[in-house]
Amino acid sequence: MKTITINECAERLLNADNILILMHKSPDGDAIGCAYALAHALRKAGKKAMPVCSDDIPKKYDYITSTLETQDFEPEYIVSVDLADTPLFGDKLIQYKNKVNLCIDHHGSNTGFAEYGYVDSGAGACAQIIKKVIDSMGIEIDKNIANPIFTGIATDTGCFKYSNTSVESYRMAAELLEHGAEGFFINNLMFDTKSRQRLELERFALESMKFYNDGQIAVIFITLDMMESSGAEEGDTEGLSAIPRQIEGVRIGITFREKEKGNFKISMRSSGDIDVSALCKHFGGGGHKAAAGCSITGDINEIEKNVVSLAGTAL
Amino acid sequence: MKTITINECAERLLNADNILILMHKSPDGDAIGCAYALAHALRKAGKKAMPVCSDDIPKKYDYITSTLETQDFEPEYIVSVDLADTPLFGDKLIQYKNKVNLCIDHHGSNTGFAEYGYVDSGAGACAQIIKKVIDSMGIEIDKNIANPIFTGIATDTGCFKYSNTSVESYRMAAELLEHGAEGFFINNLMFDTKSRQRLELERFALESMKFYNDGQIAVIFITLDMMESSGAEEGDTEGLSAIPRQIEGVRIGITFREKEKGNFKISMRSSGDIDVSALCKHFGGGGHKAAAGCSITGDINEIEKNVVSLAGTAL
Repeated sequence: MKTITINECAERLLNADNILILMHKSPDGDAIGCAYALAHALRKAGKKAMPVCSDDIPKKYDYITSTLETQDFEPEYIVSVDLADTPLFGDKLIQYKNKVNLCIDHHGSNTGFAEYGYVDSGAGACAQIIKKVIDSMGIEIDKNIANPIFTGIATDTGCFKYSNTSVESYRMAAELLEHGAEGFFINNLMFDTKSRQRLELERFALESMKFYNDGQIAVIFITLDMMESSGAEEGDTEGLSAIPRQIEGVRIGITFREKEKGNFKISMRSSGDIDVSALCKHFGGGGHKAAAGCSITGDINEIEKNVVSLAGTAL
Repeated sequence: MKTITINECAERLLNADNILILMHKSPDGDAIGCAYALAHALRKAGKKAMPVCSDDIPKKYDYITSTLETQDFEPEYIVSVDLADTPLFGDKLIQYKNKVNLCIDHHGSNTGFAEYGYVDSGAGACAQIIKKVIDSMGIEIDKNIANPIFTGIATDTGCFKYSNTSVESYRMAAELLEHGAEGFFINNLMFDTKSRQRLELERFALESMKFYNDGQIAVIFITLDMMESSGAEEGDTEGLSAIPRQIEGVRIGITFREKEKGNFKISMRSSGDIDVSALCKHFGGGGHKAAAGCSITGDINEIEKNVVSLAGTAL
C-alpha cells in the first residue's frame, strides 16, 4: 500500500465516481459514521457513492442510514473506512479484498491491503480523519455529514472519555455542533439508553465476571445461551467489553464473546499503559494499544486459560 | 444583587485581596473545580485566596486539593461560586450569608444574595464562566487551573453527554487540554472507575428490577441486605437511581433504597416530560421535575404498590 496524504485522498476521491465505501463486519458507530458521512459528501460533489457492509446496520443507527437513499451502480472505485484487515470484510465484501483503491483508517495494525492508503493511529476515531478528507475536498459540512461524524467520534472515544480523546476530538465535536450535529440526541441514544434485552445481557455478563492476578485482570463472558435467554441482538452487545476494565484495580479487561458454538471473539481493554494489541496479535488479531481483539476457536476453558495467562505476562 | 459583566467580575477580583471563595455544602466537581481554579488564578495575580466549604472535599478530588497550600488570612473580599442560595452555605459558611461581595453562578434559581453577581444559566458548568473570568483577568491558564476547570465541565455535563453540553463546553475542553488538563485521567476517575462492591451492588439492583404499566415504569431495590452482601459503602450508591430510567420505553424510573429496617428513600427519575417532583410531594418529598425523592416508612410491598400506582396516574 502506498501511503498518501489527506489532500491526496481528497484529490483521488474527487477524480473518481461510482464509489463503493466498505465498512467492516459487525459495524460500529465509527465505521457507520465514516461511511455515511463520506457518501453524503461525495454525493454533494456530484458523485454516485454507496456505503456497504456484510452485516446489517443496527437499528439504533436509523437516524444515520435513513438520510441516504440507496444508489445502484457498477462500482468503479473502492474505498475502505475504519477497516484494518481483510478478514473484517465479511462474506459479502470479501470479493473486494484485492480491489480496494483507497484505504482510510486509524488502526495502527492496518495490514495495507489497499492500493493507496492514509492511516493515522493517533486519531481517536476514523471519523476525525474522514472529516479532514471532506474538508480537504472543499465540501461544506451539513447536518447529514455532521451527525455521522459526531457519532463516530463520540462512540469510538466512549463519549469523549477514553484515552484516545484528543484536543482534535473535542474541537471537532464543537465544530460539528455548529454545523448541525445533534450531539445530545446522539449521546443520549448511544450512552444513556438501554434496551431491556441489553440490560439483561449486562446482568448475565456481570454474573460471569472472574478476576485473576490479584484483581488486575477481569474477564466476562457473552455466550450464545446468554444472547438467547436475554433476547439480545447484535446491537445490544456494543460497549459491553468496556465493563471489566472499569473496575477499580483492573489493568486488563477481557471479554469472551461466543460468536458460534466453539468460536470466540476476544476483546481486550487496558487504560493505555498496557499494549493489548500486542497481546491480541499473538492470537492473530490486532487493534489499538488500549482496545484490541482476536478470534479463537476451541474449548472455552482452554482459551480462557491461554488468554489470561498471556495477559498476565504483560502486567 | 447588582448584575455585572464577566470583565467587571475580573476587574473587581483584581482590585481585591485576601479573598475567600465559598463553595456549596456537599461539594461536587463543578463547585470544587470553580473554587480551586479561581484560587490558583488569584494567587498567580499575587493575591491571597482560599477556597472554603462547610463539608469535607471527597477524597477522589485529592488531585485538585493537593495542588493548593492552605493560606490563613483575615478575609477582605468574599466570592461565591456555583452557589445558588444561602441554605447551601452549610454550617461553617452561613456566617457569610450577608457578606458575599461577588457571586459567580450558573443556576437560574440563584436568589441574588450577593452585592454583585454574574449568573449565566446557559453555561453547562459554572466552571465555564470561571474560565472566562480568569481569561479576562489576563491570567495564563496552567495545569493547576486547567485541571479543576476541566473537572467542573466534565462532571456537570455528565462527561459531555447531557443536554447542557454546548459548543463552548467542547471547545473549552480542547483548550484546557492544550493548557495541561489531564482529561483522560479526570474522565477515567470520574466516569470509568467502579469499585467491585459497587459493581456487585449494581448486579443486585439489576436482578431486582421490575416493570409496570407496559414497561413505562421500572423499579429497582437497594436493600440493607444488598449493601451488606456487596460490602458497598454510601459512596458506592451514587448514580444508581439513574439506572431504571435509562431503559428504552421507561418514562418513570423508581429506586427504593432501604435506609433503615422498614424505612425507604424513594428516588424518581423521568426524562423531564413527567413531573416526578409532584408525585414525590404526595409522599411529603420534593425535588426537580426530572429528579425527585421522598421517604416512606412501612411494609415494602405496600409502599411499592402505592408508589407505582400513583406513578401510573402520571403516565
